[in-house]
Amino acid sequence: MGEAAKAVEEMLECLLPKPHGLHGRIHEAMRYATFAGGKRLRPFLVLHSAGLFAVNRQGALRAAAAIEVLHTYSLVHDDLPCMDDDDLRRGRPTAHKAFDEATAVLAGDALLTIAFEILAHEETHASAEVRCRLIARLAEAAGSNGMIGGQMIDMVAAESAFGADDVILLQRLKTGQLFEFACEAGPILGQAGERHRGRLRDYARDMGLVFQITDDLLDVTSTAEKTGKAVGKDKDHGKATLVSIYGVDGARREAATIADRAVAALDGYGPEADELRALPPFLLDRET
Amino acid sequence: MGEAAKAVEEMLECLLPKPHGLHGRIHEAMRYATFAGGKRLRPFLVLHSAGLFAVNRQGALRAAAAIEVLHTYSLVHDDLPCMDDDDLRRGRPTAHKAFDEATAVLAGDALLTIAFEILAHEETHASAEVRCRLIARLAEAAGSNGMIGGQMIDMVAAESAFGADDVILLQRLKTGQLFEFACEAGPILGQAGERHRGRLRDYARDMGLVFQITDDLLDVTSTAEKTGKAVGKDKDHGKATLVSIYGVDGARREAATIADRAVAALDGYGPEADELRALPPFLLDRET
Repeated sequence: MGEAAKAVEEMLECLLPKPHGLHGRIHEAMRYATFAGGKRLRPFLVLHSAGLFAVNRQGALRAAAAIEVLHTYSLVHDDLPCMDDDDLRRGRPTAHKAFDEATAVLAGDALLTIAFEILAHEETHASAEVRCRLIARLAEAAGSNGMIGGQMIDMVAAESAFGADDVILLQRLKTGQLFEFACEAGPILGQAGERHRGRLRDYARDMGLVFQITDDLLDVTSTAEKTGKAVGKDKDHGKATLVSIYGVDGARREAATIADRAVAALDGYGPEADELRALPPFLLDRET
Repeated sequence: MGEAAKAVEEMLECLLPKPHGLHGRIHEAMRYATFAGGKRLRPFLVLHSAGLFAVNRQGALRAAAAIEVLHTYSLVHDDLPCMDDDDLRRGRPTAHKAFDEATAVLAGDALLTIAFEILAHEETHASAEVRCRLIARLAEAAGSNGMIGGQMIDMVAAESAFGADDVILLQRLKTGQLFEFACEAGPILGQAGERHRGRLRDYARDMGLVFQITDDLLDVTSTAEKTGKAVGKDKDHGKATLVSIYGVDGARREAATIADRAVAALDGYGPEADELRALPPFLLDRET
């Protein structure tokens, strides 16, 4: 995963504006939030889903960069005092702490905007049809019936008696939709047709659930030192998670079952899908 | 202008999701902010710049809707407590007052996102190249070197000794860039070539300055009752404007000169440009 991270960080370095002019502070904040040493999981998924379809490397890296800045915007806005009110992210002060709230709102807006600018550029793919398909799919995944809808549900979750189905819906929107985009970006860039998109979407959906359950497990069982962010927040906020519903052991078992299903979704591919196959079991064992 | 407003509002009614599901609150907030009876000036510019190039009505209306939701997002975020902290917009509570801050942040994000989704859809234009050109231009106009850059400068303006050139730069980014996009959308949709884009950009730049100067004049000379928003805020916040630099009469004279120049930029067009020609003088006389 380190290799994908390095490649996408070089691309991000090229694509994000260098600080300049009276408004240089906005560029600084965009870069501060982006270059914070994350796992770059979504770029990893874009690059390896693209690897199944002989996609041009430059195009895959640009799509990977686009989803990473979009993911970063969602973290910056999520951390705001009026949202999750987090002071710490990946072991560093969050954007509104390092800068100020207004700059963090604007930097998030600018990162969301540049995601679409990156995809629209002809260097992403020679076919404008393909670029429009990526843009439409990303907007759908990130919009009010996707990620943002999930964040909205998350906000009302603390006051609601959520069951397992509601929690799964919440996560499929809040984090799952961007994973789905990341895994569909490969077949879209490779113009590979709906059957391939469907398989990779199935993989992404289950992989995303494993990611979320293990994230919730870490919130219960890990320390802020290890994860680089505050832990124990779900319980403090009274939020239902699959861990609070199934218990720690039950959630671990559920995650293992779903991880197997995610791997099985890739049965039609050869060894070029091995990195994607390795991810769900890797997530089961993660400590950060 | 009322006719353009009515047509774009019908399109927005179709394009914005109806409230549904556990996340229906996000759709309600998006609609609350959008259907607030604004002047729909940017859609007017899109529709009339499109009118110069025999553009398909459906496509022009979709581009008009896209810029209006993008403009609405910028108002929602601008009104937040950490930004301009406004309680009143178009005579009604602002989104974070009618809902809450977190919902307002998310609704702004969702409106920005759907702007690109609308443009990417094939109903906007049969050519995906044209759709990508619109998306790239809108992202540039709205991004960190466009509108958001202008808002960033605006935030530091209160503490800076800004001259007329700095204030003009600020306005060209903060409000001018979206006007430029609106006026360029016609020639882009009509595949009319750079010469036409250049003319309409010149018109937009000057029209935008007239808009801004007359807005600043209203802030000094009008009442909250007439404008539907708080007045006297620029002075309270110590912000430099062309009115504070040139004085009320000097700013009025400057606006009249720029308005003439805006009209002259349209010299190459026939009577189909008359609505655009009428706008700068209309702005000089506006009371809201």
